[in-house]
Amino acid sequence: MTARTTSETARDIPEATVARLPVYLRALTTLVEAGTQTCSSEDLAAAAGVNSAKLRKDLSYLGSYGTRGVGYDVDYLRYQIAREIGVTQDWPVVIVGIGNLGHALANYSGFRSRGFRVVALLDADPERHDEVVAGVDVRAFDDLEQIVADQGVAIGVIATPALAAQAVADRMVACGITSILNFAPAVLSVPDGVDVRKVDLSIELQILAYHEQRKAQSA
Amino acid sequence: MTARTTSETARDIPEATVARLPVYLRALTTLVEAGTQTCSSEDLAAAAGVNSAKLRKDLSYLGSYGTRGVGYDVDYLRYQIAREIGVTQDWPVVIVGIGNLGHALANYSGFRSRGFRVVALLDADPERHDEVVAGVDVRAFDDLEQIVADQGVAIGVIATPALAAQAVADRMVACGITSILNFAPAVLSVPDGVDVRKVDLSIELQILAYHEQRKAQSA
Repeated sequence: MTARTTSETARDIPEATVARLPVYLRALTTLVEAGTQTCSSEDLAAAAGVNSAKLRKDLSYLGSYGTRGVGYDVDYLRYQIAREIGVTQDWPVVIVGIGNLGHALANYSGFRSRGFRVVALLDADPERHDEVVAGVDVRAFDDLEQIVADQGVAIGVIATPALAAQAVADRMVACGITSILNFAPAVLSVPDGVDVRKVDLSIELQILAYHEQRKAQSA
Repeated sequence: MTARTTSETARDIPEATVARLPVYLRALTTLVEAGTQTCSSEDLAAAAGVNSAKLRKDLSYLGSYGTRGVGYDVDYLRYQIAREIGVTQDWPVVIVGIGNLGHALANYSGFRSRGFRVVALLDADPERHDEVVAGVDVRAFDDLEQIVADQGVAIGVIATPALAAQAVADRMVACGITSILNFAPAVLSVPDGVDVRKVDLSIELQILAYHEQRKAQSA
């Protein structure tokens, strides 16, 4: 591999490594909270559930190699990864669809603790507009454009039923949202330059089923 | 690679491949629903968001190599993967903690369509015991042991607040549950032989933030 400048490195991180950075960040946060100051790549790999060769390779994209015989400085590595992901910034987020899942997401502490600030909860149903969830008023979906412009929102979360999701995505894209986290069981079509990630709550359950089946076969 | 029997192959699938099988299953289900009968490894890799060399390697663990010039039989490959994961079986599941997230999970169609059948919704709060969610009665948490024994439940879902999660996990393990899907923001300690997977709803949001930051830098 040839030498690279920092900005080139930043652009070149493989997608699979990007997907593991939040997992490392979570493991490092747990270590920091436990008072751990340094850790080996083996310890961190075990805490993150990956093998240590993959971990070292992933961290090398960030220019982090640890110190031989000492390992990684936990707090500094956490900062480096948080900065690389971008969660040292403040990300204003809107959630559209304040049913059960929207309520759960609005109350989810994991967003707030990682740089994501829920600035608005929007729902098409006027009956929900009196509600306050996790300290935030539920407002009309038609306020979307104004809120996105006022607050500089780049990330939208869709927690509507499947049938409403594409129309919500279209409105989000039209007013400048460029990243969408989609919890609705629908495939969204968006223009180039807009990122969509879909959360499938059943994936982890399927991984458990795989291991359950193996346990049953070996019993 | 030496020749392996089917059962040896089944035990030897790397964890990272196991984690991708549900993603392939979802992509194949979408192709089946669109009426597609065969697909190339490139098409399937693109639909699943992985590179095609990795896809071919993953599928080789299942003994699936496709047909040169034709590709994979979509419907048969979907069946092979579903069988490998274990979702061709019926998995009775209990959900404990019927707050907003528990409600959302009980209503989540993605569980039912993938072999997971929610047989019981349990909550410690007697005020919830009159409710029916998605056609299932909310019952007392103290009914856990009876339900697990009667229905042969192996998989439990925890959607309680963080403080209650370990006690719920302990009760689940004591009555024979061997796989736990944990949505509570708490680290669970369980004995060997019990699998726990934790869903972190913020991970996908962090991956979006990473790309948003790159877009902002290149703009």
